[in-house]
Amino acid sequence: MPTEYITKRKIEFTDTDMAGIVHFSRFFIFMETAEHEFLRSLGTSVATEWNGDKIGWPRLAASCEYLSPLHFEDEVDIRLSVSNKGTKSLTYQFHFSLEGKDIAQGQLTTVCCITNPGEKIRAIPIPEFISSQIITP
Amino acid sequence: MPTEYITKRKIEFTDTDMAGIVHFSRFFIFMETAEHEFLRSLGTSVATEWNGDKIGWPRLAASCEYLSPLHFEDEVDIRLSVSNKGTKSLTYQFHFSLEGKDIAQGQLTTVCCITNPGEKIRAIPIPEFISSQIITP
Amino acid sequence: MPTEYITKRKIEFTDTDMAGIVHFSRFFIFMETAEHEFLRSLGTSVATEWNGDKIGWPRLAASCEYLSPLHFEDEVDIRLSVSNKGTKSLTYQFHFSLEGKDIAQGQLTTVCCITNPGEKIRAIPIPEFISSQIITP
Amino acid sequence: MPTEYITKRKIEFTDTDMAGIVHFSRFFIFMETAEHEFLRSLGTSVATEWNGDKIGWPRLAASCEYLSPLHFEDEVDIRLSVSNKGTKSLTYQFHFSLEGKDIAQGQLTTVCCITNPGEKIRAIPIPEFISSQIITP
Repeated sequence: MPTEYITKRKIEFTDTDMAGIVHFSRFFIFMETAEHEFLRSLGTSVATEWNGDKIGWPRLAASCEYLSPLHFEDEVDIRLSVSNKGTKSLTYQFHFSLEGKDIAQGQLTTVCCITNPGEKIRAIPIPEFISSQIITP
Repeated sequence: MPTEYITKRKIEFTDTDMAGIVHFSRFFIFMETAEHEFLRSLGTSVATEWNGDKIGWPRLAASCEYLSPLHFEDEVDIRLSVSNKGTKSLTYQFHFSLEGKDIAQGQLTTVCCITNPGEKIRAIPIPEFISSQIITP
Repeated sequence: MPTEYITKRKIEFTDTDMAGIVHFSRFFIFMETAEHEFLRSLGTSVATEWNGDKIGWPRLAASCEYLSPLHFEDEVDIRLSVSNKGTKSLTYQFHFSLEGKDIAQGQLTTVCCITNPGEKIRAIPIPEFISSQIITP
Repeated sequence: MPTEYITKRKIEFTDTDMAGIVHFSRFFIFMETAEHEFLRSLGTSVATEWNGDKIGWPRLAASCEYLSPLHFEDEVDIRLSVSNKGTKSLTYQFHFSLEGKDIAQGQLTTVCCITNPGEKIRAIPIPEFISSQIITP
């Protein structure tokens, strides 16, 4: 079965703007925190060490389509899935819903990199212990 | 000639994250502030009144591709253009560069709406005085 | 016994800055979300209706002293207490700690107001059902 | 004459919250960006190198009193002054006003530190070329 990760997030006051709804940029934060929870569920982290190197996941692309607004104190359901697993990159899909109603859907493409301080960031193959846990559709 | 709006933005400390670069979500704020400056340059605002109604521009979609990172105190050049003008919607393209180097490119689709408090938000044709000032390629 | 409310918060990537630690401004967000949880624990909300009026809690003052930094993925303990209950205002104390180590202490003074749209904001006595639940030292 | 630095800031949409005004936490960002502009005006930066070490200015304390709200597109005047210059620390006062009306006043205490990666942060005397440019009342 394809990899999936389910989480929730309660909307905070600072997520809102003067239009009375969640600011569109906040959905990218919500995607990121879901991604980070997902990586922790695999036993790793978005900022970790591996074989003596610092590993990170810089973003290549991010997008979101907005279907319905979110409000203060809403508890939004977030479903993460991995739609593409390259040798060095992952593409995540995110589906946001509130009590079954579609709110938004987003996408994030990240690339596995060595991010040692003082060195040029360079892409590497996703470590096997992470890659082996991710099944794409 | 197609509509274009050029602006700059100096990167602030809070735009950065522990990776030492500008957080990817901040580019959506940069797009939005460029859009708002552009609307002011047309003699309107993203939150204004028109014919006794409150007018706003909710977002339908937003995306960004990241080519190279930005750092604290960088002064990024932002070029906004309007790639599509529908009856009720606008699609903006954003190009980010630093001293001629490509940094990122983004897209934002917004829809013109009446946003009176207590009423359901509804899309309306873009007011003529705005629409007439925007020339698409 | 004086009123106290205990909560936790996991540090997110966007809470950090290029110094590799949580940005000082984020502690004010952490205080606010603890305050909002506390108000919900009393059966109310920072943005609610009461007797047909909208009620809010604008801030009069906020402060924080920083003792030790927080990092990504830390799970900080937050202890809220109410140090002063005026007729119309509340002063909260916040203590932040990580595995028993002092991190920061903050203070927030808020005032209970009617915040009906289109009307001037005005301070009112704290509703009895809220005030009666709060015991100060 | 005591050191003073004057700047302005235009309120952005994301500075606002669902109460329709600037969120109280944003004033700490405004103080910080004024501080950083001030440091640049002295020929330095909040994140710089000096004698082969990285220098930074971690925060010891921050506070703000709120007198009147700010709204979207307001252009707030910010006046920074240095109320105390210790051997290793600076205390800034910030006064916010809008068309002559008092909006808020804040305070920030920072300490000059060596912040080399991999080393423990340690306070140092403020470098002479900075200290000599700052005159306190």
